[in-house]
Amino acid sequence: MDFFEKKISSKTIYSGKVLTLQVDDVKLPNGNTASREVVRHNGGVSVVAIDEDKNLLLVRQYRYPYGENLLEIPAGKLEKGEDPELCGIRELREETGYEAGNFKFLAEFYPTPGYTDERLYIFTAENLTYKGQKLDADEFLSVQRIPLEKAVEMCFNGEIKDAKSVIGILMYNKNNS
Amino acid sequence: MDFFEKKISSKTIYSGKVLTLQVDDVKLPNGNTASREVVRHNGGVSVVAIDEDKNLLLVRQYRYPYGENLLEIPAGKLEKGEDPELCGIRELREETGYEAGNFKFLAEFYPTPGYTDERLYIFTAENLTYKGQKLDADEFLSVQRIPLEKAVEMCFNGEIKDAKSVIGILMYNKNNS
Repeated sequence: MDFFEKKISSKTIYSGKVLTLQVDDVKLPNGNTASREVVRHNGGVSVVAIDEDKNLLLVRQYRYPYGENLLEIPAGKLEKGEDPELCGIRELREETGYEAGNFKFLAEFYPTPGYTDERLYIFTAENLTYKGQKLDADEFLSVQRIPLEKAVEMCFNGEIKDAKSVIGILMYNKNNS
Repeated sequence: MDFFEKKISSKTIYSGKVLTLQVDDVKLPNGNTASREVVRHNGGVSVVAIDEDKNLLLVRQYRYPYGENLLEIPAGKLEKGEDPELCGIRELREETGYEAGNFKFLAEFYPTPGYTDERLYIFTAENLTYKGQKLDADEFLSVQRIPLEKAVEMCFNGEIKDAKSVIGILMYNKNNS
């Protein structure tokens, strides 16, 4: 059974570099009205990159909202209208220095559908060749190689907490074990 | 290697029912300054609930940011300071009508760490007994029972796209197969 909420009005509260916040009034299926706080985002792309020894390439970086350094698969934001595959190839090269002989779509997911419209795409990258990292001047991260089996363990024991990384690692592992 | 961004100033742009938006200025590791758009959120709890026939309980509901009806594991928002386990037990009962004889922590994850501080907790619920659904007057969802193996397939073919659901289903399946 499908439900629907009809937009009555929409107000843009903030429009920034990363996100836009809108607060909309909607009509519910029972005719009542409700307010919806919505973060609009261009979406992101992430990459499960595996070397010939079945090591995963992960990046460790400071994530300001949590005040923690997190271990994640390489990723970046989409520009409006950008092709996710090209974005993933670019981000993998910039953050880790690698290009892939084999670059394939793995999954698309919705990180937290209660309040954001962000779509996250995951690709797999294999047959890697090192060409040199190309970080922005204001981008700080360190690259780590972790055996795939160990990375799966780290998803279960909470050492890897980032959703795109957990989903990418568990899906890749199930497809390749 | 760890990095750090030091807060210089913080401005609250919006404070709503679901989220608060802040825009902060920070000092980067190289001494430059940058702006950080941060969604503050109390966090959420979700439940992988499995009946005696290895069916998963899923809820289908309209998600306004995407304009789609999504299939998800039962879930709800935390009140400030609320215990995640009690929240999970309450949400499972309200949305599906079930209480669990066995309710256990499965995972904690960060849905999209670039711009939100939301923490999502996942529990597993087994030995289910039906006590009656308790939906709010303005809450619309339908409950579906789907065999665990089929739900795993639906994560891979994109029929289930919600992050907490994909992570919960893949983790539960790996622990129980």
